[in-house]
Amino acid sequence: MTQSLLQAGERIDQLFSTDIQIIQNRAVFSYSVDSVLLSRFPKLPAKKGLIVDLCSGNGAVGLFASSQTKAKIIQVEIQERLADMNQRSIQLNELEEQVSIINDDLANLPQHIGRSKVDLILCNPPYFKVDEQSNLNESQHYLLARHEIATNLDAICQVAQQTLKSNGRLSMVHRPDRFLDILDTLRHYKLAPKRIQFVYPKQEKEANMLLIEAIKDGSTDGLKILPPLYVHKENGDYTDEIRAIYYGN
Amino acid sequence: MTQSLLQAGERIDQLFSTDIQIIQNRAVFSYSVDSVLLSRFPKLPAKKGLIVDLCSGNGAVGLFASSQTKAKIIQVEIQERLADMNQRSIQLNELEEQVSIINDDLANLPQHIGRSKVDLILCNPPYFKVDEQSNLNESQHYLLARHEIATNLDAICQVAQQTLKSNGRLSMVHRPDRFLDILDTLRHYKLAPKRIQFVYPKQEKEANMLLIEAIKDGSTDGLKILPPLYVHKENGDYTDEIRAIYYGN
Repeated sequence: MTQSLLQAGERIDQLFSTDIQIIQNRAVFSYSVDSVLLSRFPKLPAKKGLIVDLCSGNGAVGLFASSQTKAKIIQVEIQERLADMNQRSIQLNELEEQVSIINDDLANLPQHIGRSKVDLILCNPPYFKVDEQSNLNESQHYLLARHEIATNLDAICQVAQQTLKSNGRLSMVHRPDRFLDILDTLRHYKLAPKRIQFVYPKQEKEANMLLIEAIKDGSTDGLKILPPLYVHKENGDYTDEIRAIYYGN
Repeated sequence: MTQSLLQAGERIDQLFSTDIQIIQNRAVFSYSVDSVLLSRFPKLPAKKGLIVDLCSGNGAVGLFASSQTKAKIIQVEIQERLADMNQRSIQLNELEEQVSIINDDLANLPQHIGRSKVDLILCNPPYFKVDEQSNLNESQHYLLARHEIATNLDAICQVAQQTLKSNGRLSMVHRPDRFLDILDTLRHYKLAPKRIQFVYPKQEKEANMLLIEAIKDGSTDGLKILPPLYVHKENGDYTDEIRAIYYGN
C-alpha cells in the first residue's frame, strides 16, 4: 500500500518526533531544516480555524504542523509534480480529512477560498531574487523552489493580506540578507512583524536563516527578538534544541 | 590633581580593559554596559579620520573608543552638567589633544564642523519615545538621557546624513522594540544598515539591546546579522565575552 504511493526515485522520510512521513525525491525537491523549524515556530490554533501552507513543495511544513493541531490545513503548490507528491503524502498519512492541496499559483488563492478566511499562513518561499547570478542550470523544480520566478515576496504578502482574517498571522522562514525587503513588503501590505527569531548555523557564525511572524492590520509596537537558535554544535552534531525538534525529547 | 577634578557626589570609574577613567555621578547619569558594547562594536579608523560621539553623556563611549584609535574624537552633549563631567574626564585622562566636546544640541553639529566631514558616528541615544507612560518624575538629567525630549531618532539620523562622509558609518546602540522605527528612519536618511548584533541578557531570554551599523548612501544589499551576544551566564555572572570587554583577556 505504502509502496504503491511511491514513484521512481522517491523515498519516504520521517520526522522522528512525529509520526508524519513525507515522500521525498532529491531530483525534484527535498525538505530540510528550514521546513521543520517553520512548522514549529508559530503557535498553532489548537482545534478550530484554517491554516494555509503557501509554497508547500512536497508538503513537509503543513504535514509536520498537522500533528500539532486539529485545524484544517490547505497547502498551495504551483508545481504539478510537487503537488502530486504532496497529495500522495497526505494519503500516506491518512490525513485527507484534515489536509488538502490546491495545485495553483498562490495569487489565485482568494478565488479558491475567499477573502479574510485564514487564521495562520505558513510559508517557506523561494529565497533568492532572480538576477544575473542565478544559476539557471538547476533543474526546473529546484529553480522554482529557490528563486522568485513563479512567485515572490510581494505576491506572498499580498495574498496574506487578502486571505488572512484580521489579526491572522503570517509565519515565514527566509534569509537574513532579504530581511530589509521582507520588512518593507510586510509593511506595504499592513502586516506588522511581532516575533523574529534568527537561526545560526553554529556559535560565532552569522545568522543564515530567520523566522518571522507578522499580524494582519496589527500595530507596529511590541516587536520581540526571540532567543537565537543554533543548528549545529562545534563538533557538527545537531544542538540539543534541534535534536529535540527532529527526534523528540 | 585627580581629586580636584571631582565635584560633590562624583566618583571615578575605570573600565579595567583600558586605562580610561570616567567621572560618574549616579544622581545625574552613569554609563552602563550599552556604552561599553557600543564603543567596541564598530571597526574604528586606526589613525586618521574624525569620529563623533553623539549624545555623549559623561563621555564614556568616546573615551573608551579613544584607547583603540588615534583618530580625533568630537563628543556632543546637550546637557551642560554632563558635558562638564565629560570635559573633566577628558582632562583626567589627558586626552585634550585627541578628544574635544561640543556642548550643544546635536542638530547644530553641521554649524560647528561643516558637512560630510565625519568617518564614524557613535551614538547611544535616548531610547524611549515620550508618551503617557513616561515617568516625568525622573531627575531632569536622566529624563533627557532616556527619553526623546531634547533629540530623537529622526534628528540623529538627519545629522548623521549631513555630517558623515559618503560611505561614513553610523554605529548606534538601541532597544529591539524600536527596531522597526530605526530601520525606517535610517532609510529615510539614506543610511543603509550593514551589521546588526542583538544582545541578550542571558540564554533563553529575548534580546533587550541591539547594535546597528549603517553606511551613508550605501546599497541596501548585504545586511549581516552577527552572532548574538549574551551579557550574563545562568548564574548571573558576566559571560566570558563581556568579562573580556570589561576586564581584558
